[in-house]
Amino acid sequence: MGSGIKRVAVLGSTGSIGQQTLAVIGAFPERFRVVGLAAGENTGLLAKQIRQFRPRFFYCQNVGAVDSLPEGYGERLELAEMASHPDVDVVVIATSGKAGLGPTLAAAKAGKVIALANKESLVMAGEIITGEARLHGARILPVDSEHSAIWQCLEGEMPSVARLILTASGGPFRNLTRAQLEKVTAEQALGHPTWQMGKKVTLDSATLMNKGLEVIEAHWLFDTPFENIEVVIHPQSIVHSMVEFVDGSIKAQLGCPDMRLPIQYALSYPERLANRQLPRLDWSRLSQLTFEPPDLDTFPCLRLAVEAGKKGGTCPAVVCAADEAAVLLFLDRRIKFTDIALLVERALEKHQAVAHPTLDDIMAADGWAREQVRRMAEGVGH
Amino acid sequence: MGSGIKRVAVLGSTGSIGQQTLAVIGAFPERFRVVGLAAGENTGLLAKQIRQFRPRFFYCQNVGAVDSLPEGYGERLELAEMASHPDVDVVVIATSGKAGLGPTLAAAKAGKVIALANKESLVMAGEIITGEARLHGARILPVDSEHSAIWQCLEGEMPSVARLILTASGGPFRNLTRAQLEKVTAEQALGHPTWQMGKKVTLDSATLMNKGLEVIEAHWLFDTPFENIEVVIHPQSIVHSMVEFVDGSIKAQLGCPDMRLPIQYALSYPERLANRQLPRLDWSRLSQLTFEPPDLDTFPCLRLAVEAGKKGGTCPAVVCAADEAAVLLFLDRRIKFTDIALLVERALEKHQAVAHPTLDDIMAADGWAREQVRRMAEGVGH
Repeated sequence: MGSGIKRVAVLGSTGSIGQQTLAVIGAFPERFRVVGLAAGENTGLLAKQIRQFRPRFFYCQNVGAVDSLPEGYGERLELAEMASHPDVDVVVIATSGKAGLGPTLAAAKAGKVIALANKESLVMAGEIITGEARLHGARILPVDSEHSAIWQCLEGEMPSVARLILTASGGPFRNLTRAQLEKVTAEQALGHPTWQMGKKVTLDSATLMNKGLEVIEAHWLFDTPFENIEVVIHPQSIVHSMVEFVDGSIKAQLGCPDMRLPIQYALSYPERLANRQLPRLDWSRLSQLTFEPPDLDTFPCLRLAVEAGKKGGTCPAVVCAADEAAVLLFLDRRIKFTDIALLVERALEKHQAVAHPTLDDIMAADGWAREQVRRMAEGVGH
Repeated sequence: MGSGIKRVAVLGSTGSIGQQTLAVIGAFPERFRVVGLAAGENTGLLAKQIRQFRPRFFYCQNVGAVDSLPEGYGERLELAEMASHPDVDVVVIATSGKAGLGPTLAAAKAGKVIALANKESLVMAGEIITGEARLHGARILPVDSEHSAIWQCLEGEMPSVARLILTASGGPFRNLTRAQLEKVTAEQALGHPTWQMGKKVTLDSATLMNKGLEVIEAHWLFDTPFENIEVVIHPQSIVHSMVEFVDGSIKAQLGCPDMRLPIQYALSYPERLANRQLPRLDWSRLSQLTFEPPDLDTFPCLRLAVEAGKKGGTCPAVVCAADEAAVLLFLDRRIKFTDIALLVERALEKHQAVAHPTLDDIMAADGWAREQVRRMAEGVGH
C-alpha cells in the first residue's frame, strides 16, 4: 500500500453487491485496484470483468469455463488463497450464503481488511471469526447498509453506546395479516419496495428473517449484547440505522437506498470520497419518515433469529441453513410463505445445540438443518 | 483539573439555559463544580443558587442585592474577569443578547473551554471571537441544540463535509399565511410548540429569525460557507440537525427536545455521561418525522439574516440589534408581528456596513440599529 492504492479482491464479483463494488472501484482508478475477482456460475460476466479489470488472480467455480478466457488473464486461486494473499489489502466478501465463511475466516487469519457484505459467515461463526480477527489484527468493515450506518454513527464515539437501533423496511408484506401471508406468491415476495437485491435476501426481507440475521451480525460486529439491539420498522429505507448513546443522544445515518454508498465507505474508510455517481437526498422532496415497532407475531422469523442468537452455539447456523432451505422450497412453490418460519422454528426445536462450536460443528449443524427442513417440508407440503 | 473535576462558571445562571445547566451539574457532583455564578435581574434566584452551589465567584447586575447575601458567599467579579479567571475551566455563556459578547471574548482570549448558548456573540462578532479563540487555544463548544447536533455528527469526520442541514420547528405559525400573520398576538407568538425557551428566542422562532441567526452561528462554529448551510422545516423537533458528507452520506442527531442533553454534552465532552434524568426517545410512540422547505416569502427574517451573514461586516450585528428592538416593540403591542421583518429589512437597507469591524464598530452598529428601529416604528405603529 506504499503507493496509496488499495489492492482489492472482490469475492462474488458477478452478484449484485459485487457488480456495485466494481462500479465504485471503477470510479476511483487512482485509489483502488482490482487484484482479484471470484465468481460462481456467471462465467460470462466474470470473463467480461476479468477483461475490464485485468486482475492478478481470479477464481471461477466452473473450472471448464476458465478455458474460455484468453491467455495471460491472471492466475487461478482458490477463494481462501485469494482472501489471504499478501498482495491483497482489502477483501470484499460479496458471496452469498455459507460460501463466504471459508474466505472470511482465511482473510481474518491473514489480518486483512475485510469489507463484509456476507452476513451468513458472522451469523454462523461470529465467535470464531471475530476471535481470529482480534488475534491477527484483521478489521471487519460492514457493507450491509444497516451495519454501515451503525459503524458511521459510532465513529469517534465508543464506548458509550446504550442501544443499536436497526431499521427495517418491513418488506412488501408489512401490512398483511397472517391469513393473507399464507397466500402470497414467490413473485409477490420478490418485489421489494425500496432495495434492489438478490432473491434470497429479498425473500428474507419479506419474512423479516433478514433483520433477525442482521441483529446477530450486529451483535458480533459491534460486540453489543442482544438486549441492547432494537429493530424499528421504517418503510422508506432512508434512515439506515441508528445508535443511542448513554446520555440519550441518538445518531442516525441517512441516505438514498443505494448499496454503492456503504460499499464505497468500507473501501475508502477512514476517508470519504466525493462521487457524483451516488444519489443525494433531496430535502425538498423528502417529506415524511415513519417508524413503528415490528409485528413479531405476524413475522416470527425475526423473533426466531434473535432467540437463536441469544442461545448461541450452533443455533444461529441452524437458523441460517433452515431458512435458506425453506426459502428455496418456497421459490420452488413447494411450501407456503408462512411455512418458512414454521420450518425454521421446528428445526430449532429439534436441534441439539453445541456450545462454542468448532467450524466442523457448525458445518454439521448446517447440513443437519437443511436435511431436516427438506424432510419436514414433505409433511407441510401442499 | 488535576482532580478530573471540571470547574464551571455559569454566566446567566438564572435564565432557562442557566437553570438547566445547574440541573446537569447537580446530577454529577463528582464531575463538575460550580465555581462562578452570574445573573442579571433575578437576584432572589441567584441568592438561592449561591447558597446551594457555594461558588467562589459571583456576579450580580443589581449591586444593591449583593448586600442581601450572607457573609462568606464568594467574591464578586465582573463578567469578563470571571470568564477569564485561572481557576475556571469551562465558561458557560447562557446570557441572552449582546451581554454575552464581552465575556465570550474574554474567555476566548484566556483560552477557555466555552460552552456557548448565546448566539448573538458569534452572530455579531464571529470573526473576532473565532480569531481570538484560534490564537489563544480556546475551544467553543455549542450548546444550541442544532449546533450541538452538527458537532456530534462531525465527531471523527472532518474535513469531508458537503452540507450542514439545520432543522427548524417552523414555530407556532408555520401554516399561517402572510395575511394571518399580520394579526397574531404576542400571546400566540410566545406559545412554542416543542421547545420551552425564553421570550426573545421563542419570538425569534416564530419569525424564523432564530434560524437565520443559527445559520450565521453555524458558519462561524464550523467554518462552513453559507452556500453549504441549508435549513429544513421539521415540526417535530426530534432531528436536531444533520450533516451531509462528500459521499452523500448524512448523519443526523436525534433526541427529545430537552436542552439538558446539549448542555450536558458540552460539559462532559469528549465523554458522554449516563443521566437518568434525561428523557429517551420512545420508538414505539414516535411514528412520524416530517420535513419541508422553509417558506422564505412568508417568513422573510430567515432570508434577511442569511443575506446579512453573507454580506458580513457589521450587517449581522444590525440584524441582531434591529430584531431585538423590534421584538420588544411587538411584545409591547406597539407594532404588528409582520413589522418585525419589515423593520429589520429597512434597518439593513439604511445601514452603511463596515467590513472586518472592530468591537467598537460592532457596538456602534448595534446602537444605531436599535435607534433606527425605534424611530421607524413610530412610522409603522398602529
